[in-house]
Amino acid sequence: MTAREAAAGPAPGAGGKVTITEIARRAGVSVPTVSRVVNGRSDVSPRTRARVEDLLHQHGYRRRSPAPGARAALLDLVFDDLGSPWAVEIIRGVEEAAHAAGAGTVVSALRGRPGDPRDWMRNLRARASDGVVLVTSAREPVLHDELRVLGVPLVVVDPAGSPALDAPTVGAANWSGGLAATGHLLSLGHRRIGLITGPPRLLCSRARFDGYRAALEGAGLAVDEDLVVPGDFRPESGFAGCTALLDLPDPPTAVFAAGDQMALGAVEALRRRGLRVPEDMSVVGFDDLPEVRWSAPPLTTVRQPFTEMGRLAARTVLALARDEQPASPRVELGTELVVRASTAPPARHG
Amino acid sequence: MTAREAAAGPAPGAGGKVTITEIARRAGVSVPTVSRVVNGRSDVSPRTRARVEDLLHQHGYRRRSPAPGARAALLDLVFDDLGSPWAVEIIRGVEEAAHAAGAGTVVSALRGRPGDPRDWMRNLRARASDGVVLVTSAREPVLHDELRVLGVPLVVVDPAGSPALDAPTVGAANWSGGLAATGHLLSLGHRRIGLITGPPRLLCSRARFDGYRAALEGAGLAVDEDLVVPGDFRPESGFAGCTALLDLPDPPTAVFAAGDQMALGAVEALRRRGLRVPEDMSVVGFDDLPEVRWSAPPLTTVRQPFTEMGRLAARTVLALARDEQPASPRVELGTELVVRASTAPPARHG
Repeated sequence: MTAREAAAGPAPGAGGKVTITEIARRAGVSVPTVSRVVNGRSDVSPRTRARVEDLLHQHGYRRRSPAPGARAALLDLVFDDLGSPWAVEIIRGVEEAAHAAGAGTVVSALRGRPGDPRDWMRNLRARASDGVVLVTSAREPVLHDELRVLGVPLVVVDPAGSPALDAPTVGAANWSGGLAATGHLLSLGHRRIGLITGPPRLLCSRARFDGYRAALEGAGLAVDEDLVVPGDFRPESGFAGCTALLDLPDPPTAVFAAGDQMALGAVEALRRRGLRVPEDMSVVGFDDLPEVRWSAPPLTTVRQPFTEMGRLAARTVLALARDEQPASPRVELGTELVVRASTAPPARHG
Repeated sequence: MTAREAAAGPAPGAGGKVTITEIARRAGVSVPTVSRVVNGRSDVSPRTRARVEDLLHQHGYRRRSPAPGARAALLDLVFDDLGSPWAVEIIRGVEEAAHAAGAGTVVSALRGRPGDPRDWMRNLRARASDGVVLVTSAREPVLHDELRVLGVPLVVVDPAGSPALDAPTVGAANWSGGLAATGHLLSLGHRRIGLITGPPRLLCSRARFDGYRAALEGAGLAVDEDLVVPGDFRPESGFAGCTALLDLPDPPTAVFAAGDQMALGAVEALRRRGLRVPEDMSVVGFDDLPEVRWSAPPLTTVRQPFTEMGRLAARTVLALARDEQPASPRVELGTELVVRASTAPPARHG
């Protein structure tokens, strides 16, 4: 593609009438260099790319997608923390969908790095990423702004259920999952059902709690605040929460831990007291991490479709890169109760 | 960089005296296009790149690393199967080391794909990968040959302990790990120690078995073949293996499962029989997967340093890309016994 063709590429409705030649003059680079930036090629130094992109943005230009077959597309998949127990399932889904579209998946993590996310942004610019799938991050606002300036499409995979973002979001049906977990315990005959919540600052924690409440109220029961203990998704908090429930004068007969790792911590707290699951207490988790299929006992839980969430996010960002708009700015994929061996009817008293 | 500079780049000792101009003529492309291929730029169509690279290879040219800052480097991290329980730990290590060197990490999986690994090779060519970290794959030979033709450096992360490969390899000290696991059980007073092995076709299975035997013999004991049962690393095989050991007329008092997932299966087999770990039987695993810290009970196991293996593999492939040679073609990182709650002295009989 020549510089002349590239110069024909201002975004519709852009106010700027400035030419590529003028951009090149202002940036102090050659016209072919500006053309390479406009066409999303990678053979431009990061510093030059940044300077030219800033000028293009000021004048309403949008970067073109590369012509089909011109180079291999790259998706960026960015985690706040690769230590998350479900990271690999999201990677699998994104990689599958990207591969099907002939794109490579660049995986990176932001947390625990010296410097700030701008380091990562510089690398992203240098490789001329075609789109970004971001897995929920506290640093979102900075990244969102920078990506908008670059004209790189963004989709957020958001198991935490953040408030409305300015990017398309793929989440899971947390409320329905809380309802299903609690409904399962009610159907087994439990009436005193403990809840170990997720971190209160996350909307997903609130949604699962509301699902728990809705199921109880549907069965004519009110929430007993003594049976609701706070957790933070880590196993230690499930251990502590379950211990607190066992120390009540009248402990529950079942516990819904709003995350699988907390459920594993709860099972360990019961084992330490010499109590058996499910004979002495039923436990339901939330996530369906691969390892809970072989916990002792295998865990009844609510499946979050992490792989499908990754797949959909990748497809959406690839569609955005082709200038297609997603059907909805926020999609929640269904959750599903998976019954295994950690739940049973309550023990008969007396 | 101009085509003239690129033309100065035949590999030392290459027999071919052919010029870039001649390569361009034979490939039916322009000289700048050949230059772009030689310099590892990405803005060349995959088909053209393949044709030019084949000609360059015939004439003894080697692709140059891009000039520093010219474009962001990309490492490819390739799994046979992203479903492996330790995949994410290797990703974390590779990503850390690549990021530190300013490189992106492209993650992909080969298994379960229609077509063959050549599809993936085409994508690798198109993005002008700077190096490949391959996590053990049955399809290795094909990939090794193709990568050699492309001049892309390769390092294999090989927890399975394959026989000598023609690429630098990073593995783990399997024999020492088997020795440490068995030695721990002996030091607790166990004399009848069962072994659930890994798949016999993998050298790592053999190395762990030999470590088990060496520890027994060091304590003046012989291997009792009745106490050695085959597994395949999956939890189902640990469940079946432990069940077989329990059905012996004189069952062991402890079992060493040569993989954590098999250990979890063994613990579940014991639970189903109403037996407790470690009171009724001790269990030791191998891997130290994140989830066994919170299995019920937390598992005593042998840690494989997957993150460190990934980190070292990435550093090695980046060094190869700079034409440095690794210190040794095969490195084994140390394994380490981690004692948790699944092991105790044997129950007193009589």
